[in-house]
Amino acid sequence: MFDTILIANRGEIALREIRACKELGIRSVLAHSSRDADTLPARLADETVCIGPPPARQSYLNAAVILQAALNTGAQAVHPGYGFLSEDADFADACRAAGITLIGPPPEVMAELGSKVSARRLMSRNGLPLLPGATEPLDLPAALDLAERVGFPLLIKAAAGGGGRGMGVAWDAGTLAEVFRTTQATAATLFGDARVYAERYLRRARHVEVQILADQHGNVVHLGERDCSMQRRHQKLIEESPAPALPAGLVARIREAAVTGARAAGYQGAGTFEFLVECAGDLDEFYFMEVNCRIQVEHPVTEMVTGIDLVAEQVRIAAGEPLRLRQQDVVLNGTAIECRINAEDPRRGFAPTPGTITELSLPAGPFVRVDTHAFPGCKIAPEYDSMIAKIIAWAPDRDTAIARMRRALGETTVRGAGMHTTAGFLADLIDSPEFRAATHTTSHVDTLTTR
Amino acid sequence: MFDTILIANRGEIALREIRACKELGIRSVLAHSSRDADTLPARLADETVCIGPPPARQSYLNAAVILQAALNTGAQAVHPGYGFLSEDADFADACRAAGITLIGPPPEVMAELGSKVSARRLMSRNGLPLLPGATEPLDLPAALDLAERVGFPLLIKAAAGGGGRGMGVAWDAGTLAEVFRTTQATAATLFGDARVYAERYLRRARHVEVQILADQHGNVVHLGERDCSMQRRHQKLIEESPAPALPAGLVARIREAAVTGARAAGYQGAGTFEFLVECAGDLDEFYFMEVNCRIQVEHPVTEMVTGIDLVAEQVRIAAGEPLRLRQQDVVLNGTAIECRINAEDPRRGFAPTPGTITELSLPAGPFVRVDTHAFPGCKIAPEYDSMIAKIIAWAPDRDTAIARMRRALGETTVRGAGMHTTAGFLADLIDSPEFRAATHTTSHVDTLTTR
Repeated sequence: MFDTILIANRGEIALREIRACKELGIRSVLAHSSRDADTLPARLADETVCIGPPPARQSYLNAAVILQAALNTGAQAVHPGYGFLSEDADFADACRAAGITLIGPPPEVMAELGSKVSARRLMSRNGLPLLPGATEPLDLPAALDLAERVGFPLLIKAAAGGGGRGMGVAWDAGTLAEVFRTTQATAATLFGDARVYAERYLRRARHVEVQILADQHGNVVHLGERDCSMQRRHQKLIEESPAPALPAGLVARIREAAVTGARAAGYQGAGTFEFLVECAGDLDEFYFMEVNCRIQVEHPVTEMVTGIDLVAEQVRIAAGEPLRLRQQDVVLNGTAIECRINAEDPRRGFAPTPGTITELSLPAGPFVRVDTHAFPGCKIAPEYDSMIAKIIAWAPDRDTAIARMRRALGETTVRGAGMHTTAGFLADLIDSPEFRAATHTTSHVDTLTTR
Repeated sequence: MFDTILIANRGEIALREIRACKELGIRSVLAHSSRDADTLPARLADETVCIGPPPARQSYLNAAVILQAALNTGAQAVHPGYGFLSEDADFADACRAAGITLIGPPPEVMAELGSKVSARRLMSRNGLPLLPGATEPLDLPAALDLAERVGFPLLIKAAAGGGGRGMGVAWDAGTLAEVFRTTQATAATLFGDARVYAERYLRRARHVEVQILADQHGNVVHLGERDCSMQRRHQKLIEESPAPALPAGLVARIREAAVTGARAAGYQGAGTFEFLVECAGDLDEFYFMEVNCRIQVEHPVTEMVTGIDLVAEQVRIAAGEPLRLRQQDVVLNGTAIECRINAEDPRRGFAPTPGTITELSLPAGPFVRVDTHAFPGCKIAPEYDSMIAKIIAWAPDRDTAIARMRRALGETTVRGAGMHTTAGFLADLIDSPEFRAATHTTSHVDTLTTR
């Protein structure tokens, strides 16, 4: 086992990783930007090292500096969290070259799955169902040809994209060219790679994703699935496990597809296989979307229904330990729901409202978990994402989990000059008949907010 | 189901009850003393009513005023929490006479079990093993006679006692008279009843208690047991579920004894059957000690291993609902440990250090629960008990739960002028080889602190 891990991230996920290290008896070194010197992760890490100024390119995305920090502090491994360098195959390569273990899948696996196009090809070869679409990056004429074959609406996606960013929906031939060019430009800006591909867009779909654990010895288990259909412009707002109101046979096939896909990819570590379930007819069509080669924001709902510490498992797998559980040992118990509280103003198009938190009350008590780096007086910095806290509620059944989440949101107060949060908006979503009946689709929130 | 419940308590347990009410869709009215007007429970309750000045006799123990508050606010039920009036059969009688449901067992049951002497008689008749001792309150000559029969040390206990208070150990004939009179005086002060009885005192014993749920329709289930052997002068410091390192056959017999006892008593509600396990030879002797007719401070550890909301179950039972679970539905999963963080100075004999909390950091994150009424700027009032927070950690296995609790205690900071806490002391106990090997007995802490 490692004795020191460099945490190459910030915010709540850095804190989450430090906690896992402490419980495993591993020394944690936080690599932080100068903006993040006085944060909760910095206070709780065993050691800290400043890796540069606030802009991510000069710190959290600066692979060379992060690697040097790992070498300087005697870390044998780097935990990249989510976002930043977590799915950067070049960084994974550089780690390997420097003799540092990156906590995640090997660079080759990351590269193959990181390209949406090659991931689709691999999964298709292994029998996973795909939405009709391109098997290669395409140009505008090819996209027009594709649209003629599969019909509109067509989803244009960055080939190197992820995290729900770099996507656009072309509703008809008249808008295709514009959406295509906008997505190319966004892809170039966000991922340094302007290539895009396209696939049929489902108007009414549920987002269902399967959590996978795979060790270096060929063992793969799934930890059930999460439903993340409550999203705004492809950004998840509310997640839950298990996926509600789906036929058991469909769920079993989706889980099996994820395990098949993980084996086919030679996956190692914790990973997520994302699928879309088409909400038409009798809810039994599903399509592979992409693989996320990292821990996800919404991992706590899986932890609460399985009792498994996903970050600790990531560390153990990276250290070469075989999985201690077989599929039959994974028991899914009850329902967990997560709400992401962001510093955003729902009445102004969810514009970020960074600033200093002057008043903070977070929920606690039975079966409620809060993952947050926030404290009274802390700053939600404009340079980084606007998440303040994740609130997770568990109960033996979904109705009680919903009641518990409403109770937890009711205990939540975040105030700061000019600061707004999504807490009230999320409470309304939790209260909506669509969420309560689990009939909401991925477009539910966008339909509400563009009215 | 009730639409309004009066919460006749304070601190974390009042907050716990308000949370249960919110999740059940019940209006909560907090009855509070003037000292407690600006507390977290007062902020979160749907309504508040001041019932008198800070001294408990004039507010939290003032049955008439509390009943009137229930009637005035339209409450159909009163939740008494723990301590104060929670085990007062006269209060239970008065509630019944006023047409208000007391959330707890019926007055007759409370009266019979509230007297340690009649409880012992009842349980003995039903086959539960008792420590050799008196079957009636006794005087000093009778205590001397008893000592000749059962030997020293002898435990002198208030007949009307509970919560580990009103007890003294006479180690030999020379000290019996003094311990006897001291305990009588304490009993008169604490419980308004000077009667005492006596039983053999076990030098090396574990405190094991079984959580019971019994409805009004004759259904009784147990929710496993808790080990509360880490205590100081009969005050519990650390509790866990399940009881570690006990033979499975013994545990099964203790659980069965509790269910038998609950049926024999006609018990209704949530209750705890307390036992001592003698740590001599092969750990297979156990003795009935007492029944607590209320929710207990340490109930969260049972909630975390069963997933059952004990306070919600109390409310449902009091409303006449049948238990929704049978014994085979109760699954005990993993290990949960609770530490009570008190405002006390371990270096000065655990003297209370009340005051205002100026700095407060409490743990959070995976599998850690905190039940507390504390917030930065709140007062730990000298009139009331010194508990600041309960920290509970769960894990699939005991070693991981211990590591998680150490992580959680490491995240805990409580500061205030002149304030000390037990957090560091508890961390040392958690680290001790005795706790890690689960070889500690009820006298472990007293042995440490009187060195």
